[in-house]
Amino acid sequence: MLETSTQPFEFSAHIAAREIREGRLSSEELVNSCLERIKDCDEQIKAWTFLDEEQALAQARAADRTRKKGDMLPPLHGVPVGIKDIFDTHDMPTENGTVLDAGRQPSLDALSVADLRAAGAVIMGKCVTAEMAVYTPGKTANPHDSKRTPGGSSSGSAAAVAAQMVPLATGTQTGGSVIRPAAFCGVFGFKPTRGTIARDGVLMQSPTLDQLGVFANTVEDTALIAGVLMAENLRVRTIEAPRLAFVKSPVWNDADDETRAAFDALNDSLGAHITEVELPAQFDNAISWHKAIHDTELARHYGPYYERGKDRLSRHLREMIERGQRTSSQEYFEAKTAIDTLNGLLKSLSSGFDAILTPATTGEAPVGLETTGNPVFCKLWTLCGLPSLSMPLLKAKSGMPLGVQLVGPLGQDAGLLGCANWLMERGN
Amino acid sequence: MLETSTQPFEFSAHIAAREIREGRLSSEELVNSCLERIKDCDEQIKAWTFLDEEQALAQARAADRTRKKGDMLPPLHGVPVGIKDIFDTHDMPTENGTVLDAGRQPSLDALSVADLRAAGAVIMGKCVTAEMAVYTPGKTANPHDSKRTPGGSSSGSAAAVAAQMVPLATGTQTGGSVIRPAAFCGVFGFKPTRGTIARDGVLMQSPTLDQLGVFANTVEDTALIAGVLMAENLRVRTIEAPRLAFVKSPVWNDADDETRAAFDALNDSLGAHITEVELPAQFDNAISWHKAIHDTELARHYGPYYERGKDRLSRHLREMIERGQRTSSQEYFEAKTAIDTLNGLLKSLSSGFDAILTPATTGEAPVGLETTGNPVFCKLWTLCGLPSLSMPLLKAKSGMPLGVQLVGPLGQDAGLLGCANWLMERGN
Repeated sequence: MLETSTQPFEFSAHIAAREIREGRLSSEELVNSCLERIKDCDEQIKAWTFLDEEQALAQARAADRTRKKGDMLPPLHGVPVGIKDIFDTHDMPTENGTVLDAGRQPSLDALSVADLRAAGAVIMGKCVTAEMAVYTPGKTANPHDSKRTPGGSSSGSAAAVAAQMVPLATGTQTGGSVIRPAAFCGVFGFKPTRGTIARDGVLMQSPTLDQLGVFANTVEDTALIAGVLMAENLRVRTIEAPRLAFVKSPVWNDADDETRAAFDALNDSLGAHITEVELPAQFDNAISWHKAIHDTELARHYGPYYERGKDRLSRHLREMIERGQRTSSQEYFEAKTAIDTLNGLLKSLSSGFDAILTPATTGEAPVGLETTGNPVFCKLWTLCGLPSLSMPLLKAKSGMPLGVQLVGPLGQDAGLLGCANWLMERGN
Repeated sequence: MLETSTQPFEFSAHIAAREIREGRLSSEELVNSCLERIKDCDEQIKAWTFLDEEQALAQARAADRTRKKGDMLPPLHGVPVGIKDIFDTHDMPTENGTVLDAGRQPSLDALSVADLRAAGAVIMGKCVTAEMAVYTPGKTANPHDSKRTPGGSSSGSAAAVAAQMVPLATGTQTGGSVIRPAAFCGVFGFKPTRGTIARDGVLMQSPTLDQLGVFANTVEDTALIAGVLMAENLRVRTIEAPRLAFVKSPVWNDADDETRAAFDALNDSLGAHITEVELPAQFDNAISWHKAIHDTELARHYGPYYERGKDRLSRHLREMIERGQRTSSQEYFEAKTAIDTLNGLLKSLSSGFDAILTPATTGEAPVGLETTGNPVFCKLWTLCGLPSLSMPLLKAKSGMPLGVQLVGPLGQDAGLLGCANWLMERGN
């Protein structure tokens, strides 16, 4: 069935898992192919902060031995996964993107990593994160153009999947750290409903805002890894005729001309499937509410790092911490209570719709590696904890991907994937 | 069965409801008897801020007409209840203990008031509250000694039940506003597990800390009215041999000598039924965590009052609001996250115990009506949202009541009432 010219590293996770399960591919072959791919392209992309070939291959060989016993195999058996370097791994360092954690070796796996291992995954290595999963970039470049940022903070995870170094990777989002790099790198980035993936053993930045997510190259692969992490059999719901709400959001004018034109055109082309919905004035505060919560909680959780070595933190992070230390409890309390209000409003505004369609970013990945780009189109949805997905549906004139963000109602993760599937199959 | 010399106002709610149900007493007779009682003693006690005899009697007569139809009667049919004047009532003013709400007439009943009406209760009138359910006293005096405070903020409710003006009343607690007046007035005050009584239509002071509660003269009556408000058939669980934890709490030294001696003696007398449990150091911060949350949330919710007329607020309340405006988000966030930590610790510390036994107040009701006394023994339990009850088990040398506070695990409201019952039957 497969073309002979196709290399294993090009397989989707879904296909790779099937080929392994059915004995036509060994995990060792797959992992070797991925390691070759990494050798070919990672010198330029720099997606990995820890990679030990032997350690990855040993896991692959163990998976192959298990398969030979003929037991029922778990869904990711033998498939390599990249792990954002803020997820603890008992057998690999976890440095959280800061020199303050250089050489840090956790003794336990994050729950999500343990779930991946239990699902048969080969933990390929650790992917570059922006400094402490905030803004300041690591070394990674955009696979489509190495002069451009891959986005952040899950930079290495998005880039590794985009360059087919691994079919799957994990990420986290506190502002826009899954959606933005997915959009910039042209892959699927999916952050399920807040709280659906256990976050134990992942660097805590903001208990209110932190949410775990995944990267993949197909909708089906997205569902496969998200389902493992959500500990449910997440299936892409079949949606015959989705009803989409086009939401420009309060930051529409932050988007560049090309992006606005591309979304207006997409909106037009979707005809009866889409209706523009305007958000009421309360939503204008969402970005500042997100900021009050983010600054406050980050200042507290990163306080020990600040105490230990504030001069070894980036200026941006230091300033955020200091801003959080000065934030008033009134601002924070107002912001916290606003979440329920916004969700109540969104529930009634989006009733009758399967998903909201909105930009993922203000435009294509900007040139330069000194920033990770603007997360402003993600913050409202992160604040509200809604399931969000970026899909590589559009392209800028430069040829760079332009992400389309879909946002679903709380808990409607399968339906959101269904809308993404419908849009992909329809094409653009 | 009843002594002929007993007046209806002396009946417990439970007996009164039974006598009405079985046709030996009319609601009109009962309400008339309570109104007489009020005439006799309220000139001195001043428990009521709104009382319209005709309005109360009209409800009583309607209850008597319903009874004659012979339908199944709800549990409080014909029984008068006093309502703290921060619960909205559609047919009586609700002034929240502040001149800023003088003459305020809500259009809807609080859900809890509607639940009481649905349970057949006669809404007797509105009971005096401290200013906006915080600290600054209203006009009420202690029924045992009119030179002393009844405690607050549910001052009128506790005093009205203690003086048998009504068998039941409602209250709220954000610091110690149910437990403290119950202890000072020598009645049962019960604040069930946080969130078990719907708070719609009750003045919002602190979404995190505000909790609704009740006053009664017997354990059975406490369960009767609490059950109506909790919308469950709350029964006093029979406990043959309770296992009590004696907790001095971090504020033990704030208690006066007499109180400490009385509790040491009670602890001794309970022998094998009680074990002293010491709280670890984290609990030393509970009072300041309570304060950070209280100040912050009160400043926001009472902000509109402050804007409208801060010079007509008491100095104490004004200062609290201003302190809340200055509180940092770090303090508030730390305090909010501490709640789960403390509850986790309490869960393991109190496992194997039916309830915690601890002082309700630092001593008997102090002389003077310019304060409502010290709520310090209530704040930890309010912060944690645990079911708490004050019972009139001890007496000071002066003859004034000295409250014993029982605190149960979250959700174990019936068991807590069972422990109270066991202690009452055992005597002291």
